[in-house]
Amino acid sequence: MSGSRASVRKHGFTQVTEVSPDGPGRFAGEISSEWTFGGRANGGYLLAMLGRAAAATSAHSHVITASAQYLRSPGPGAVAIVAEVLRAGRTASQVRARMIQDGQPCVEALLTVAELGKASAPYWEAGAPAPGQVDYEDCVRLAPRAPAGASVSLMNQIDVRLEPDSAGFLTRQPSGRGQLRGWLGLSGVEAFDANSLLFAVDTFPPATFDIEWAGWVPTLELTAYIRALPAPGPVRVLQRAHVIDAQRVDEACFVWDRTGRLVAQATQLAGIRLG
Amino acid sequence: MSGSRASVRKHGFTQVTEVSPDGPGRFAGEISSEWTFGGRANGGYLLAMLGRAAAATSAHSHVITASAQYLRSPGPGAVAIVAEVLRAGRTASQVRARMIQDGQPCVEALLTVAELGKASAPYWEAGAPAPGQVDYEDCVRLAPRAPAGASVSLMNQIDVRLEPDSAGFLTRQPSGRGQLRGWLGLSGVEAFDANSLLFAVDTFPPATFDIEWAGWVPTLELTAYIRALPAPGPVRVLQRAHVIDAQRVDEACFVWDRTGRLVAQATQLAGIRLG
Repeated sequence: MSGSRASVRKHGFTQVTEVSPDGPGRFAGEISSEWTFGGRANGGYLLAMLGRAAAATSAHSHVITASAQYLRSPGPGAVAIVAEVLRAGRTASQVRARMIQDGQPCVEALLTVAELGKASAPYWEAGAPAPGQVDYEDCVRLAPRAPAGASVSLMNQIDVRLEPDSAGFLTRQPSGRGQLRGWLGLSGVEAFDANSLLFAVDTFPPATFDIEWAGWVPTLELTAYIRALPAPGPVRVLQRAHVIDAQRVDEACFVWDRTGRLVAQATQLAGIRLG
Repeated sequence: MSGSRASVRKHGFTQVTEVSPDGPGRFAGEISSEWTFGGRANGGYLLAMLGRAAAATSAHSHVITASAQYLRSPGPGAVAIVAEVLRAGRTASQVRARMIQDGQPCVEALLTVAELGKASAPYWEAGAPAPGQVDYEDCVRLAPRAPAGASVSLMNQIDVRLEPDSAGFLTRQPSGRGQLRGWLGLSGVEAFDANSLLFAVDTFPPATFDIEWAGWVPTLELTAYIRALPAPGPVRVLQRAHVIDAQRVDEACFVWDRTGRLVAQATQLAGIRLG
């Protein structure tokens, strides 16, 4: 067995988002330090843990919408999740889920859980942006290097690759379009599923890096829609900014599987030290 | 005093979204039958009521993000709203708010309340779609007529005008682009404010009308971002669909004030009888 397979077993995304029942509507989980960036879990990782708890609480299988408010950034280690079904419908359940660490609420989210079918062609998709055209192998891999001595162990778990057009910020030559296109893979042999797509929508660098360097861009609100089960393999990602204003920026994210099927979308409002 | 001014006093949006304190973290409100369509309040009206309660509960003034799960559609009449501050920060408060009618939860939302400044030019907005170019007077007003005998009193309170390019569905000639552009005004002399923009993002017909007729398109999840205080007067709206799939469609909405300033954005996932 290869080292990467063993690592997937231990630190794979499915493992590090696991939640165990711990009383009615209550779950225990553990944030892995192997999936942090600068010592912190990203919003998508936390949302995926809430998604696991929401699906376990409801009669349905797949989170199709999730909206989160980030209250406090939890550190690696044990967390509790409280999930409550607000309405159990025939085709979907609506769930509230909250993550707590050391007695402090960290994230609260509202989720819709339903059933996603096998990916087939969408009925109509002319309104979506086109996926990128550059092959995985021809994209620039973001190095798993700390920008200023910070621990970026997350970057050993994922493979973020940017189309050369989107990689200008790496050499301080952002294009000014506010768009990053590329690919995202999970290290080792792990494939994406409906739950890890909640993570995928929050893994790319801020689209504002393609406009102007502004340091950390903390998410205020994140909403994700999961549209279909992805085919195995890395996914294509487009992260784009619309408007920077009053120290806030909104970003949209589109995720396609390798067959070109749109499988996830998200929007977020984030703080920024510009505008 | 003109009739329209009197009507604004009685049935203006500010009046019909009013909430009164009714115990700690609890508010009483009343859904006006004058603002319903087919006997039901739209999701944006309900969100604006939750927004009033969220702002009243927090130390900040304006809702800047709101994400809602619609559980049951309340009818006209009394509602209770329970609002709780999840985190009170220096620059923003994060609030959960829930609307209840006859003991049944109807809507639950997570909101960020902060301060919006006077509208100035955005720092960067090249990522947003361009606002429409057709003047208000040259757009086609949606008639306040019931499609099949249903009461559409809402249409007497608002003025929805479509650019001629977007009005094809009225004569069964949708363009196929999945985009509706036009204007939205409040009847009488009332101007939009940060709170009524939560309503504005949910007033246009479904963008899918510009693709194919599919009847009612019920909102599953709605997320709105309010970006700036609007200038007085009607607002420009762009409602567009991205992907129709597995009986669900995602729509994005952009709202500009009459000076061309982007003031609000929203996304929603809705059910549809196509795909």
